[in-house]
Amino acid sequence: MKISSEEYYSDSEWKLFKQEAAKYQTPFLLVNLDIVKKSYQEVEKFFPFSDVYYAVKANPASEIITLLDSLGCNFDIASIYEMESVLACGVKPDKISFGNTIKKLSDIRLAYSKGLRLFATDSEDDLRSIAAAAPGSNIYVRILTEGTATADWPLSRKFGCHPDMATDLLLLARKLKLNPYGVSFHVGSQQRDVGTWDTAISITKYIFDYMADEGINLEMINLGGGLPANYISQTNPLEVYASEIKRYLEEDFGENMPRIIMEPGRSLVGNAGVLISEVVTVARKSRVAVDRWIFLDAGKFNGLVETWDECIKYPLVCEKADFTCEDGVLAGPTCDSQDIMYEHYRYRIPVNLCPGDRIYWLTAGAYTASYASVDFNGFPPLKTHFIGE
Amino acid sequence: MKISSEEYYSDSEWKLFKQEAAKYQTPFLLVNLDIVKKSYQEVEKFFPFSDVYYAVKANPASEIITLLDSLGCNFDIASIYEMESVLACGVKPDKISFGNTIKKLSDIRLAYSKGLRLFATDSEDDLRSIAAAAPGSNIYVRILTEGTATADWPLSRKFGCHPDMATDLLLLARKLKLNPYGVSFHVGSQQRDVGTWDTAISITKYIFDYMADEGINLEMINLGGGLPANYISQTNPLEVYASEIKRYLEEDFGENMPRIIMEPGRSLVGNAGVLISEVVTVARKSRVAVDRWIFLDAGKFNGLVETWDECIKYPLVCEKADFTCEDGVLAGPTCDSQDIMYEHYRYRIPVNLCPGDRIYWLTAGAYTASYASVDFNGFPPLKTHFIGE
Repeated sequence: MKISSEEYYSDSEWKLFKQEAAKYQTPFLLVNLDIVKKSYQEVEKFFPFSDVYYAVKANPASEIITLLDSLGCNFDIASIYEMESVLACGVKPDKISFGNTIKKLSDIRLAYSKGLRLFATDSEDDLRSIAAAAPGSNIYVRILTEGTATADWPLSRKFGCHPDMATDLLLLARKLKLNPYGVSFHVGSQQRDVGTWDTAISITKYIFDYMADEGINLEMINLGGGLPANYISQTNPLEVYASEIKRYLEEDFGENMPRIIMEPGRSLVGNAGVLISEVVTVARKSRVAVDRWIFLDAGKFNGLVETWDECIKYPLVCEKADFTCEDGVLAGPTCDSQDIMYEHYRYRIPVNLCPGDRIYWLTAGAYTASYASVDFNGFPPLKTHFIGE
Repeated sequence: MKISSEEYYSDSEWKLFKQEAAKYQTPFLLVNLDIVKKSYQEVEKFFPFSDVYYAVKANPASEIITLLDSLGCNFDIASIYEMESVLACGVKPDKISFGNTIKKLSDIRLAYSKGLRLFATDSEDDLRSIAAAAPGSNIYVRILTEGTATADWPLSRKFGCHPDMATDLLLLARKLKLNPYGVSFHVGSQQRDVGTWDTAISITKYIFDYMADEGINLEMINLGGGLPANYISQTNPLEVYASEIKRYLEEDFGENMPRIIMEPGRSLVGNAGVLISEVVTVARKSRVAVDRWIFLDAGKFNGLVETWDECIKYPLVCEKADFTCEDGVLAGPTCDSQDIMYEHYRYRIPVNLCPGDRIYWLTAGAYTASYASVDFNGFPPLKTHFIGE
């Protein structure tokens, strides 16, 4: 498979990436903030019916937080540490949702003391902690959803609860003097099947009706994340997701549309980043080996963790890509044998690629730098450089 | 399965772990340096025929490096960064082996300038780099080995080359005015089948004979790592590994025993560490769910990466372990659904375990703290505290 940067970036964007990349030693991530801005504006344009809460975990860099804040974005945080970073960027606490359902009592207390009033939950333990440490707060319950078969980085049963328990929790929230505010779900990251939102929205509608019968008027649906970035696997364009999701919502809620929020992460910052690596060694394992092993200075433990099980297939652009290509195995620089990015899925690699040549990992802005190991095999975490804005 | 600390630690060791652990907030790793010392002395005692090169990647803490250096240990490093850390601890460069076969030319040049003269290789690219940047150095060639089916953290085909290429490389080393010094292999980490060393040693013998015919007298065999630490899966005691490996060597090399070196990592520091985590939430997913989910403040991204695919099964000790137990799923604190430690393999968890209770992960001294993500979901990397020495 021959990959061209043109399918992913405009000429001027790609030229700027290449030009800026030349200034730094590999490996590093280069994020173009103008592309983040463009992505945010696209989401705003296609989803005018929804408030946007950026999933900070996708890329917690303060440059991105500050930019998105200036554009009017809200923030979904996974921990008190993310909360502190976001607040340190000047974000107001009423623009922050604590989206992780796994929270220590002390964490909730800290969040509440900083002004947060919107919390996700999916268990009685957690709900009681919120009631104790964040009285009167707005609660949304996360429900379990299906759809993992069509998500490239699937979600498991770790988060969410069955609808029967969701209704129990919302009733308990009222009893505990919290505000039962809404329902959330997450259809899986890099979800390629728009239809998975339909099912989740239908279940949500059922919960809204059930709660109305109990005298509780839920006000909000959190559509979660899952919108795609541009990797190798084909997805629908963003506007198709938008129009389909809008249709599902209208079919179920009609004139009584609740407040809609969503938590894009990957789709806001994925495309904005290119990870630049260098070939360290090219090797064959025997005199007549068919396979060529391409060892890079970036690997699973310093930025490319989403290649685990070869889940995310990044578009790769090689120097010398105009030459004859053949299949190659791509591996990282550590002594760990698990540090192989692609062995089963074969990329086409120029036959004359050699140590010092660069390989560009497109659409690498999400779930790369912050995932990197702190010190594995001594390699430092992946650096990020910024362009634009 | 009921796990008792007594199978892993003496009464006084366990008491000390518990007592020191009480001083710190979870999650953290607690390393007892006296146990590192004891493990090193055991390896020395059972393998008197071998020099020991500690695989720094297993746990690069300076406290451990300094201790092992004082005991006469040598060091196997995976990168120039590990080299710098080890040198900073006062280790002499002639006690360091550069064991990673993936090396940039500039890295080799730096290592040579610091006094390193012993390098692993497995490809022509890398060998030529060594010849260019580290003239006259001692070279050992790593060969591919089998045995991954019986290793708990298996090695792939990433490292090593076929014996035909090994002989080619050793001949080329001579031509490039390097010193063709020996052969290395690695049978897989946490290797439970001692027999895998037999095969590897036989191939090594063949290479020694072949090279002798070419007028090259190889001087060294590097047995690699693979010696086990005490996890749940049963292994032979260390002395059985020692006596069997000695027998294989004597059968093949008899009176002409070359210098033997080995690179233990896990077996030196694994048992010395206990990772202490706290229960954040206990949840069921529906009214009648059989499964209980135990969410901890330590997970795959802040120390427990070797639970990926449930490879390494740590012995777990819970508070309240004397109470009735039932199966539970164990998951980490991040919003990533991959952050589940054990879902298929079921640990027995006390039914009354609740938020704030501690779970102790025994034998967690290796491949934990340095593997942790730098900033994933905002969680800081795992801290290490030391006791002993």
